[in-house]
Amino acid sequence: MIATRFTERFKVPHPVMLAPMGNVSGGHLAAAVSNAGGLGLIGGGYGDAAWLEQAFDDAGDTPVGVGFITWSVLRRMDLVDLVLAHRPSALMVSFGDGEPIVAAAKEAGVPTIWQIQRLAQARQAHAAGVDVIVVQGQEAGGHGGDRGLTSLLPAVRDVTGPEQIILAAGGIADGRGLAAALMLGADGVMLGTRFLASSEAQGSVTAKERLVATGGDQTLRTRVFDVVRDLDWPASFTGRAIANTLTEQWHDDLDGLNRDKAAQCARYQASAEDDFSTRVLFAGEALDLIDTIEPAADIVHDVVRHASTLLRDGPRRLL
Amino acid sequence: MIATRFTERFKVPHPVMLAPMGNVSGGHLAAAVSNAGGLGLIGGGYGDAAWLEQAFDDAGDTPVGVGFITWSVLRRMDLVDLVLAHRPSALMVSFGDGEPIVAAAKEAGVPTIWQIQRLAQARQAHAAGVDVIVVQGQEAGGHGGDRGLTSLLPAVRDVTGPEQIILAAGGIADGRGLAAALMLGADGVMLGTRFLASSEAQGSVTAKERLVATGGDQTLRTRVFDVVRDLDWPASFTGRAIANTLTEQWHDDLDGLNRDKAAQCARYQASAEDDFSTRVLFAGEALDLIDTIEPAADIVHDVVRHASTLLRDGPRRLL
Repeated sequence: MIATRFTERFKVPHPVMLAPMGNVSGGHLAAAVSNAGGLGLIGGGYGDAAWLEQAFDDAGDTPVGVGFITWSVLRRMDLVDLVLAHRPSALMVSFGDGEPIVAAAKEAGVPTIWQIQRLAQARQAHAAGVDVIVVQGQEAGGHGGDRGLTSLLPAVRDVTGPEQIILAAGGIADGRGLAAALMLGADGVMLGTRFLASSEAQGSVTAKERLVATGGDQTLRTRVFDVVRDLDWPASFTGRAIANTLTEQWHDDLDGLNRDKAAQCARYQASAEDDFSTRVLFAGEALDLIDTIEPAADIVHDVVRHASTLLRDGPRRLL
Repeated sequence: MIATRFTERFKVPHPVMLAPMGNVSGGHLAAAVSNAGGLGLIGGGYGDAAWLEQAFDDAGDTPVGVGFITWSVLRRMDLVDLVLAHRPSALMVSFGDGEPIVAAAKEAGVPTIWQIQRLAQARQAHAAGVDVIVVQGQEAGGHGGDRGLTSLLPAVRDVTGPEQIILAAGGIADGRGLAAALMLGADGVMLGTRFLASSEAQGSVTAKERLVATGGDQTLRTRVFDVVRDLDWPASFTGRAIANTLTEQWHDDLDGLNRDKAAQCARYQASAEDDFSTRVLFAGEALDLIDTIEPAADIVHDVVRHASTLLRDGPRRLL
């Protein structure tokens, strides 16, 4: 058992949080992570009331939190109210100015989490008085920024002070990553891609098997999938996904893609949901470390057990 | 004191290596790092016989190694012979197919180091039988690739096995980074940017003061400076530098820069050496962690002392 400010604040046994992956982190997966001793977050994504209600139903009585894409849910504050009415364990925001949402959650007495990708954003989140800052490295799957975890994480610790609860995200899939994150100044980790390849994750077996068969060298940060899905992501964020025929054709020719946008959007819509030669499969560089599809509880326990061993053996490295 | 396979193999007290930064890691800096108990590498860069001879002179009797830019020195194998004749502590190659150089070093009985940026390259370096693989994350200053350190490092450990000596590079500037690298499976660290802001580094006071005043958010990976310096770097490598007026103008318009290349090369050549609004100042994201210009020995000792404390206290994190 590893004790940190995070485990104390949320009264959970393990400093492991599930990333709120849209259409992936449903109620079953979030509850499985919480029941294993971590903190499960439902992936609110761009915002869909019916999907959210179903996720809360699926989680049942298990405490879970919810995460949203900030810039998208700012247009749907009614969904924030919907979620807060369920009294979630935490409300997390990522990608944009989270202050209005944080203010609403604080008003409702719900703990707040703000994911950042740059040091300047960490100052803003800290000033807003959030309970937890998630520092996301560019290694992460899905949307994110361009800074790596290695120096951003200790830098966020330095500017936010010793009391701020900080979780590390991006490229972490096992106990080595958790132990390293603690050394860099974090109070725990948030895992996405590792839980994407779990039994309880929403998503097809085809998708999960493709994750297991692919390595980090085959991923890239790109705007291609946002263009063909007609999503207006702010320019500072890209999405890390597994390279496919669509990125091979357009990643280095975004101007060309935008000129042919209508046809390419239609092509994308016409493709089968499991045709990942065209469809996006978001995944992080941690794919290198993922060889099996496992129950979420096994993932939580393996990560904590391995990290505990590394911490216990730390003094043995000293002469 | 931290003992690893690296300290055993090179018979040095500390698992800290100086990055062979071209025109920065001269003989004085390399010797200072070696004398402090680490391993200093002279920055052979693109290859210049007179500069190398001067660096060896400056290092005096202190054992130091040398690092080269692979694709460049492959055109100047006479410089490899020049260096091997000095019996360096190690010969390091980065950026390209290092096998011919590694073969020459092995023939001469000189230990070999190969820096990689992708998992596929680690397999090649391991197959070539190098003594050390340096895993460089994209956080690093200067030239590098696009993968982050967090998952690439443990992935390299997994594919090269328990005996391969591995150093971590990119985004590391203090004891937290060293302790984290050890948790991820490394046997030590290679530091660049931290030693760039050292007393012994070649380079102007203006440059060093700019490093101290700048943060990681202000750096970016770009090809702009290679275009205006007319260097034919392979497309898979970019250089991380501090953003300036040149990158603001051209980073998102490389086609435009290439069309105006002759004029922009002339503009660059005409600028003053210390005019960093135009000139390149390579630096990594670890800038966030660097607030002082210090003697190299103090840097080595502070990094090791802080990492030792973190390792010693590892078990205190367990319940």
